[in-house]
Amino acid sequence: MLAGDLYGFEDLLSKDEATVVQRVRQFMATEVAPIANDQWSRAEFPTHLIKRYADLDIAGKPGSSLLNGWLALEMARVDASMATFYGVHSGLAMGSIRACGSAEQQARWLPGMATFDRVGAFALTEPTGGSDVAAGLRTTARRDGDTWILNGRKRWIGNATFADLIVVWARDEADDQVKGFVVAGDAPGCTATKIENKIALRMVQNADITLVDVRVPEADRLQDANSFKDTAKVLRATRSGVAWEAVGVMLAAYEIALAYSKERTQFGKPIAGFQLVQDLLVRMAGNVTASLGMCVRLAQLQDDGSYRDEHSALAKAYCTTRMREVAGWSRELLAGNGIVLDYDIGRFVADAEALYSYEGTREINTLIVGRAVTGESAFV
Amino acid sequence: MLAGDLYGFEDLLSKDEATVVQRVRQFMATEVAPIANDQWSRAEFPTHLIKRYADLDIAGKPGSSLLNGWLALEMARVDASMATFYGVHSGLAMGSIRACGSAEQQARWLPGMATFDRVGAFALTEPTGGSDVAAGLRTTARRDGDTWILNGRKRWIGNATFADLIVVWARDEADDQVKGFVVAGDAPGCTATKIENKIALRMVQNADITLVDVRVPEADRLQDANSFKDTAKVLRATRSGVAWEAVGVMLAAYEIALAYSKERTQFGKPIAGFQLVQDLLVRMAGNVTASLGMCVRLAQLQDDGSYRDEHSALAKAYCTTRMREVAGWSRELLAGNGIVLDYDIGRFVADAEALYSYEGTREINTLIVGRAVTGESAFV
Amino acid sequence: MLAGDLYGFEDLLSKDEATVVQRVRQFMATEVAPIANDQWSRAEFPTHLIKRYADLDIAGKPGSSLLNGWLALEMARVDASMATFYGVHSGLAMGSIRACGSAEQQARWLPGMATFDRVGAFALTEPTGGSDVAAGLRTTARRDGDTWILNGRKRWIGNATFADLIVVWARDEADDQVKGFVVAGDAPGCTATKIENKIALRMVQNADITLVDVRVPEADRLQDANSFKDTAKVLRATRSGVAWEAVGVMLAAYEIALAYSKERTQFGKPIAGFQLVQDLLVRMAGNVTASLGMCVRLAQLQDDGSYRDEHSALAKAYCTTRMREVAGWSRELLAGNGIVLDYDIGRFVADAEALYSYEGTREINTLIVGRAVTGESAFV
Amino acid sequence: MLAGDLYGFEDLLSKDEATVVQRVRQFMATEVAPIANDQWSRAEFPTHLIKRYADLDIAGKPGSSLLNGWLALEMARVDASMATFYGVHSGLAMGSIRACGSAEQQARWLPGMATFDRVGAFALTEPTGGSDVAAGLRTTARRDGDTWILNGRKRWIGNATFADLIVVWARDEADDQVKGFVVAGDAPGCTATKIENKIALRMVQNADITLVDVRVPEADRLQDANSFKDTAKVLRATRSGVAWEAVGVMLAAYEIALAYSKERTQFGKPIAGFQLVQDLLVRMAGNVTASLGMCVRLAQLQDDGSYRDEHSALAKAYCTTRMREVAGWSRELLAGNGIVLDYDIGRFVADAEALYSYEGTREINTLIVGRAVTGESAFV
Repeated sequence: MLAGDLYGFEDLLSKDEATVVQRVRQFMATEVAPIANDQWSRAEFPTHLIKRYADLDIAGKPGSSLLNGWLALEMARVDASMATFYGVHSGLAMGSIRACGSAEQQARWLPGMATFDRVGAFALTEPTGGSDVAAGLRTTARRDGDTWILNGRKRWIGNATFADLIVVWARDEADDQVKGFVVAGDAPGCTATKIENKIALRMVQNADITLVDVRVPEADRLQDANSFKDTAKVLRATRSGVAWEAVGVMLAAYEIALAYSKERTQFGKPIAGFQLVQDLLVRMAGNVTASLGMCVRLAQLQDDGSYRDEHSALAKAYCTTRMREVAGWSRELLAGNGIVLDYDIGRFVADAEALYSYEGTREINTLIVGRAVTGESAFV
Repeated sequence: MLAGDLYGFEDLLSKDEATVVQRVRQFMATEVAPIANDQWSRAEFPTHLIKRYADLDIAGKPGSSLLNGWLALEMARVDASMATFYGVHSGLAMGSIRACGSAEQQARWLPGMATFDRVGAFALTEPTGGSDVAAGLRTTARRDGDTWILNGRKRWIGNATFADLIVVWARDEADDQVKGFVVAGDAPGCTATKIENKIALRMVQNADITLVDVRVPEADRLQDANSFKDTAKVLRATRSGVAWEAVGVMLAAYEIALAYSKERTQFGKPIAGFQLVQDLLVRMAGNVTASLGMCVRLAQLQDDGSYRDEHSALAKAYCTTRMREVAGWSRELLAGNGIVLDYDIGRFVADAEALYSYEGTREINTLIVGRAVTGESAFV
Repeated sequence: MLAGDLYGFEDLLSKDEATVVQRVRQFMATEVAPIANDQWSRAEFPTHLIKRYADLDIAGKPGSSLLNGWLALEMARVDASMATFYGVHSGLAMGSIRACGSAEQQARWLPGMATFDRVGAFALTEPTGGSDVAAGLRTTARRDGDTWILNGRKRWIGNATFADLIVVWARDEADDQVKGFVVAGDAPGCTATKIENKIALRMVQNADITLVDVRVPEADRLQDANSFKDTAKVLRATRSGVAWEAVGVMLAAYEIALAYSKERTQFGKPIAGFQLVQDLLVRMAGNVTASLGMCVRLAQLQDDGSYRDEHSALAKAYCTTRMREVAGWSRELLAGNGIVLDYDIGRFVADAEALYSYEGTREINTLIVGRAVTGESAFV
Repeated sequence: MLAGDLYGFEDLLSKDEATVVQRVRQFMATEVAPIANDQWSRAEFPTHLIKRYADLDIAGKPGSSLLNGWLALEMARVDASMATFYGVHSGLAMGSIRACGSAEQQARWLPGMATFDRVGAFALTEPTGGSDVAAGLRTTARRDGDTWILNGRKRWIGNATFADLIVVWARDEADDQVKGFVVAGDAPGCTATKIENKIALRMVQNADITLVDVRVPEADRLQDANSFKDTAKVLRATRSGVAWEAVGVMLAAYEIALAYSKERTQFGKPIAGFQLVQDLLVRMAGNVTASLGMCVRLAQLQDDGSYRDEHSALAKAYCTTRMREVAGWSRELLAGNGIVLDYDIGRFVADAEALYSYEGTREINTLIVGRAVTGESAFV
């Protein structure tokens, strides 16, 4: 049981699911944890681990939402960059193909992605439009016979510097609808430039993408993505995933703080025995436990089909907000040592900022929930 | 479904449980809601409703912890004083007898209490000791043959001005252990003086109790209460109940705010359409949902027997902290009207302060959890 | 020196100003403090003290903004209702006449008000418009020869049940501009109905006012109030006053908590020696000190003429937000006793809610500042 | 005037002081701002700027506390590492010599330090003792004729990798008192190892120092440092400096956010026009303004001699707490771009963590203030 899982939520996993979770936990502990700070420092993705993911046998497997969520948690608990890499590949890229691809397309792309022979990326966000992604989308697709011609710019595209397949969303000039295209990473006209100088999720390779007359066969257009509503389905699931990642980060922050508080002595005793330190720990524990309770119920809604946009938006906004608090308290507890990467918490504090903002800022997710509960749109 | 139950936690109740919940919801809506502000204003308990509680057929019934928690939620959602009255009677008084009474004692007292023919109270807290209740307990019990003689003072004892039975906790002078005694409300030497001038839970009749040579037969000593550890078991369950009550208050605050935001117009439109208003609503919704998730899991732990002190202490501290935020945001949203009792939120804001402090302050519950997770006691 | 004035801001007062402050402090301590809880409980204003205010010789006196602010602080430190009574009379009513009345009008009304022979009220807010007071003002004024005829409804009008003079703001049907009228409290057609069931500032007598064909001579129209901009000048000064009142409430809350922490023992020592208690006290002290620093600078801006709407809006929003925190922490520190009026903090907690919302909610003041700093209006 | 200085505190500077401030502002804008992110990225100190500091003609100059504070603010507003470099040299190292050195020692060391020909460091903190610096100090000094022999370890010593002079605090084995020694940076037996992998203040070169039989002549022992009380005087002044630095960071964060909000458009308009964005900006502005008010008063206390430990401890704890909020809100406002160093805010967010913890954590400063106001020590 994880130290921060005070209410034993992990017991809700089935025996088979628990086995998968253990496998991933083991992998993260032995393969990722030892190199995380170093990779992060150098802002490099550990590409040698990509194929190791295949051995975990989790991508593209049918599974309960609880299991999927818990796997995101386990990854983020060790490193949020790795969780994000996996989320982009499995959740966003494979998820788009699963949700919007034809049977033929699914059969064509998903197996190779499940084995990580082909890594996916997902290109929706643009430089000028973060929040108003639907209305503001400017990348264009123009049909020319059996070929589409894509032009535009994308920003923040995770995995894009090395992805084999990029799901690109563009506006069909003919009917003004947003459609999805599977573009080869090395397609002529498609240039991905790594975004440098990130202070968070430094292992994740985000890119600015330029699309100049990129030609995509009609066969590679996602056949069931006919409007932004279809894209939104993918985002909904992704936001749930980020909520789970946020719980993972909180669990890590709590574990780091707890362990440190037992080892570090001041005034002749472990600081774990000071009221002000326990105050920090218990505030963390409360946030973790409540957020987990939220995510577990969300997974049930996902599985029983009653899941709506506002559900995942609320979890994303809430859990990442709590995560930010927890990461901050943990770093505070480590005082000076908290700013040295070797103590791990520094990386989580930094990465938390990215999780807080990506897949919809707190503000945007607030307005999604607000619209649902009040019936009034307050976006503009 | 309740407006604030965005994740549909209510669906987790069994069909039979849902029926009970509906019955209580209906009772609260028709009998309590219309008189709550007036009774609260006059600081009077609606004694005419006591026997109506019997019709609800809930006190002393075996039931899942989820059901019991949800009932506390439903009561607090309409009025926290009524929830407290019920909690004192059913949770603390009946709970003590159930946990620490012999079979004979249970048979003797519980049925009459289940029908509310005899109302119970619970006298543990003393004027000088709120937090260090175990070590600081000064009320004494001296055995004299088959009789015990009780002396001391109690404070904050809910229901005590009209209770038929008061479970009094006193320290046995012989072995220094804390023991429990069922004392008649009108026992000679036992005087209950109502605490006046409360600003919260004004319907609840709390009393200062003076015990001067109060004689209690050995047969009325709870036979299985041999030390403070037995008392603590009762408190553990009670703290969970307060967590559920806190959720009830949050749900009420959210509903009031949501309804008001749709009706109130400013600048020519409902204020529900303003970003700053949606921000308040969604923060509330997050707190409600996460707290509910926590309580639901806590109920599972209660039922599967893995339940420990720190579990309920964490839920009590966390949910009441969130409740205080939610009540404040709701009142803020109602602006000036929020300070007029007729809009209901004023009562919830005030009552929230009592819930926040009773059954262990945030500080004490923090230290209970802190001790459990660190292994270090930081109480002194 | 006040216990909570850790940085000795009081030393910034001149010797003469300090004498006035001492006089008011003494008055509040001996005349108001002993009766405050009782008057508050009964929701009655201590009318016998009105004439005693004249002896303080402060209303309508020229004085530095620092002195005026500090007086508001001193009053609120003992009772926020009394501070509000004084603020309405001296700040809003006399302030309106001073800012918008002709020399003749000032000479006619101010002296009698300075001696409290005539008490003033200020009627701007209406039932349907709190926030959009300028655009939403519906009370009308129609000129008929040398007489104006007023019709409409006002809400929340402090002192109105016993005021001799009410400054009523109405929209001139002819030019659509907001103008000010001094209406006698007993003018035919003017009915003030006390707002009952308040949970805050219960001593303050707020009224709903109905104006039905109330006739006001042109001589009683404030001659220099030609548009809402003139009204806004009065509000600007009032908001500063509320910021000072908020500091007064914080000082009271801090003093109550500090004194209690030294007297109350738990686990065999004063709770002032526990880290979690010191944490609360020091958070309070920080808020008090920073807010005072803000108010002192604001007073300098007032006096040197560089004072703008956003300055007082920022202070009002910030200091009342901090006040709410401080009042809550103080009540938390007193635990159960914090909900009994006799310990004073309960009254301050409740009153803080009114201060937080009146004279512009946090939201409205935020948007006033936001517009000033960004150049963008976000009201609608 | 700085955009975030809404109340014009800068006007409180004298004309001469304003000139100095302008000079430093200019220097920071032209010399530091353009290279800050790059230096920070590479974790290198811009040593070429050290001698440029001499031209500013500020180190070791007599000046008001307001001026000194404001200079710290100006530096931190552009880069907190540079402010820290200056604070260590001028505040801690020169400050120690000024406070605890004999006239001869001051004459010997200060002039060369004022011209930055000799850079200073300050070695108090040790690996095992951050908070209990007084009692826990383990570095020893043993007198051997006219020479002292120092042994021990120091941690977090800023500037130490290139400092010419290090003020080392050690416990005299003879009388157990803490004494101060000026040690040459290249003294035999003194080894400074750079602390790598910092996530904050990356330009500042902090070192772990090992002292093995380092010999220091009695003439280099600070003659007036006879106990930890003398050291504490230096810390008191330094904590005030950090409070000012925190204000500088807040001002920077506010300016960055404000500028971004005016440029960035979403849904067809600048995001500055959205309520949720103005909410963030105005919360920032409140924190900045209140913190400035606090610091300005603190400077007055410093200059009039009524300054005590708790005054600077309160300012340090409060202003750095508010700074952390402000930095977080600013980064939130920039969303994804907030995690790219080029937008500057990422560096400030990271650096804020160091300021929050150094020179006494929030917890330690809380307990310093708590002891002063309650008379009870709660350190252990």
